Amino acid sequence: MGLLSIPTSSSSSSSSSSAVPTLFLVCCAFFVSQALGARIPHPERFLPFIWPLPEKFSFGNETLSLDPALSLSGNGAAFNIVREAFERYKGILFKHGDRFSFLRTLRPAYDVNKLSITVHSNSEELQLGVDESYNLFVSGAHQLSGSGGSQLRCDTSRHYLPVNVIKQIIEAMSYAKLNVLHWHIIDEQSFPLEVPSYPNLWKGSYSEWERYTIEDAHDIVNFSKMRGINVMAEVDVPGHAASWGVGYPDLWPSPFCKQPLDVSKKFTFDILSGILTDMRKIFPFELFHLGGDEVNTGKKPSTLFHLSSVRRLLGPGVCPKAVAKGFRCVFSNQGVWYLDHLNVPWEVVYDADPLEGIQKASEKKLVIGGEVCMWGETADTSDVQQTIWPRAAAAAERLWSPRDFTSGKHAKVTALKRLQYFRCLLNRRGVAAAPVTNFYARTAPDGPGSCLVQ
Amino acid sequence: MGLLSIPTSSSSSSSSSSAVPTLFLVCCAFFVSQALGARIPHPERFLPFIWPLPEKFSFGNETLSLDPALSLSGNGAAFNIVREAFERYKGILFKHGDRFSFLRTLRPAYDVNKLSITVHSNSEELQLGVDESYNLFVSGAHQLSGSGGSQLRCDTSRHYLPVNVIKQIIEAMSYAKLNVLHWHIIDEQSFPLEVPSYPNLWKGSYSEWERYTIEDAHDIVNFSKMRGINVMAEVDVPGHAASWGVGYPDLWPSPFCKQPLDVSKKFTFDILSGILTDMRKIFPFELFHLGGDEVNTGKKPSTLFHLSSVRRLLGPGVCPKAVAKGFRCVFSNQGVWYLDHLNVPWEVVYDADPLEGIQKASEKKLVIGGEVCMWGETADTSDVQQTIWPRAAAAAERLWSPRDFTSGKHAKVTALKRLQYFRCLLNRRGVAAAPVTNFYARTAPDGPGSCLVQ
Repeated sequence: MGLLSIPTSSSSSSSSSSAVPTLFLVCCAFFVSQALGARIPHPERFLPFIWPLPEKFSFGNETLSLDPALSLSGNGAAFNIVREAFERYKGILFKHGDRFSFLRTLRPAYDVNKLSITVHSNSEELQLGVDESYNLFVSGAHQLSGSGGSQLRCDTSRHYLPVNVIKQIIEAMSYAKLNVLHWHIIDEQSFPLEVPSYPNLWKGSYSEWERYTIEDAHDIVNFSKMRGINVMAEVDVPGHAASWGVGYPDLWPSPFCKQPLDVSKKFTFDILSGILTDMRKIFPFELFHLGGDEVNTGKKPSTLFHLSSVRRLLGPGVCPKAVAKGFRCVFSNQGVWYLDHLNVPWEVVYDADPLEGIQKASEKKLVIGGEVCMWGETADTSDVQQTIWPRAAAAAERLWSPRDFTSGKHAKVTALKRLQYFRCLLNRRGVAAAPVTNFYARTAPDGPGSCLVQ
Repeated sequence: MGLLSIPTSSSSSSSSSSAVPTLFLVCCAFFVSQALGARIPHPERFLPFIWPLPEKFSFGNETLSLDPALSLSGNGAAFNIVREAFERYKGILFKHGDRFSFLRTLRPAYDVNKLSITVHSNSEELQLGVDESYNLFVSGAHQLSGSGGSQLRCDTSRHYLPVNVIKQIIEAMSYAKLNVLHWHIIDEQSFPLEVPSYPNLWKGSYSEWERYTIEDAHDIVNFSKMRGINVMAEVDVPGHAASWGVGYPDLWPSPFCKQPLDVSKKFTFDILSGILTDMRKIFPFELFHLGGDEVNTGKKPSTLFHLSSVRRLLGPGVCPKAVAKGFRCVFSNQGVWYLDHLNVPWEVVYDADPLEGIQKASEKKLVIGGEVCMWGETADTSDVQQTIWPRAAAAAERLWSPRDFTSGKHAKVTALKRLQYFRCLLNRRGVAAAPVTNFYARTAPDGPGSCLVQ
């Protein structure tokens, strides 16, 4: 039995569209239910305890009970991804049978027994440009409408992240509506991916244990798909590629200069072609990332190794230049959206503006999303989740939710309480999200207390 | 397909018995398989990469392949707990189908297709004193024999740990052969447990979200049982009980003195009796913990609140006194086995001797196990796993494995490599175990690299 403490006020029909996939949004429905089910006193009644906020919604302030036999209706019920998500979230909401209920006197009736989802796309394929909007009705009294586009970049070269851990990250991404996993698979430190056409490449992995087979990669793509998340793979060339030459030393310009890749050899292009051909079979998302940063085009290749240390200081402002030339752009400000910058607090992440410096409406449309980056130099399985969460969720609301709710005078006061609530929800689902207000990200709570105020 | 890189040397029959439950030990079988399956070059061939080491074993140095259709035989196959563990570990070992195997040229044959487990107990009931020994044969060439007794204390009062997180801890405990979860449920800060007989008690929880229903508790007990783990519940009375009075203020001696419980009132004993009666229905383990520490028996109750700060300095040496009087004892040295002491490195945890200061064999027998404690003042969902692991595993080997292997001249050199390997195994299974050799427990890795050397 779950308790739902919102609906009852007026509702109105609405719809929206956006440039990101459709079906992960069903997660939202159940997030609403569980977030509200806890009957925590609402410190702010201005906004419901939903994170990130949907584009349009109506809500009230009564407590309603939720039937464990909740049924799904609407055209959403025709989609595999929606149906599986529905069952997954029912499992989260209704963990137990009522084995011990005979010991209790309170037996609430069920006010809510139906969830209706109207999906506006007619395909389950996840691609750029798919209409992801939907309407969600809870017992005919509640409504949400979704749009948004946001991605998380994960680095598995500096430290290997096991498949189970990547899945934990993906699962948590779906809770926060981050809908593209930008997988920075390979870098100069290690080459963990199997490439069947060139089987020596993953000799550049840290160890045989720290590798991804093609089955692993496929597993990750499929797991993501069922949560409405696309996987955008990255093979960073030609600068960050020293690890490639462990298996094929000919790729190195010399034994003393290991990157960039030696572009004077045909073999280099053969390998690149082989990698892309193999990866195309595994990663269906139409976008693919080729890195391309930090290549020293000067004459002193030895300085290349130093360039990586300044990557994080390259500065914001790429999007205004790109869209002015008619390119589409994904916003990722190094100063505030690099999650390994531990001294950036949640509210600075939250305040970032993907449209900063862009005036024309036609150019604003070319900013198709934003990305927070989890660079892996000091993040491995032991600390990656608490480095990502809850700050990545702050970025998700910035990308996902209407400005009217997230940028007003009291927006951050309201947002803090909702974000603390959302962090508890992540914890409750087993995600090691860190305290929202700790001085450095991923540090411990400083004393006993409730997760709702830490 | 998994690869097994040990057996082939001689084997001999062996058996042992101990004072802890039986069936979790099957985990070991698969741990062996997976740990070896990675084909990491063994830096030390003296000991196999198994953690903790079983009482007796034989091993070789060939690589054998493991059939995904591995079957279970021996009397172990008659036990539900063994069969479910067998299937669970098969799921861990054989994650994927062979969907992409057509891309590969290498198709190893399977050398190992049968696992035989002989369990010496004839009951699945987990209780103190149950014979937990077993023999394990892999393709007739490999053998392990198990004994040991070790427990982990988790504190859910200073910070609430969600049920999912407790399950993650229990799952990891089974990997490390910690076989009693000592659940320190309640303390002065919060009372998260539902007590049907006195439903106002959990008004002392931090929030309605930070509570355990009786279904939650039952779920935890059952989840533990299927992993061979007993749950020893603790209700710490009368000193650490301020939170009880939130729901029943009569339990407080006065509004200004909230603990210990007011033992001058019959109502106090009625409530205690109600709690114990309700908990008896949920926790079948015959041992129950009543705390009892830090009660000021002097005349100034206000000093009670300061006593808690010195608890951690009470010093070792309780066991020698207890066993000298004929009591049984569980060793837990505050200086080295309190996991929230972050400056205690793994090798100090590993070196602790539960029999220190005890000379007589008859008294040594009364030390029935040991316990590492995860006090929750600065540990919540965001950091509890990396505070526990890998150091709790160091204690597990101290309690579980023969002295001959773990205390010799080179024992710690060998142990470090095996423990780093075990930490990677935990990571691989999604457990956020911290680097083994970081200066403070649960801190981040200090730079890129393999988990095997961090």
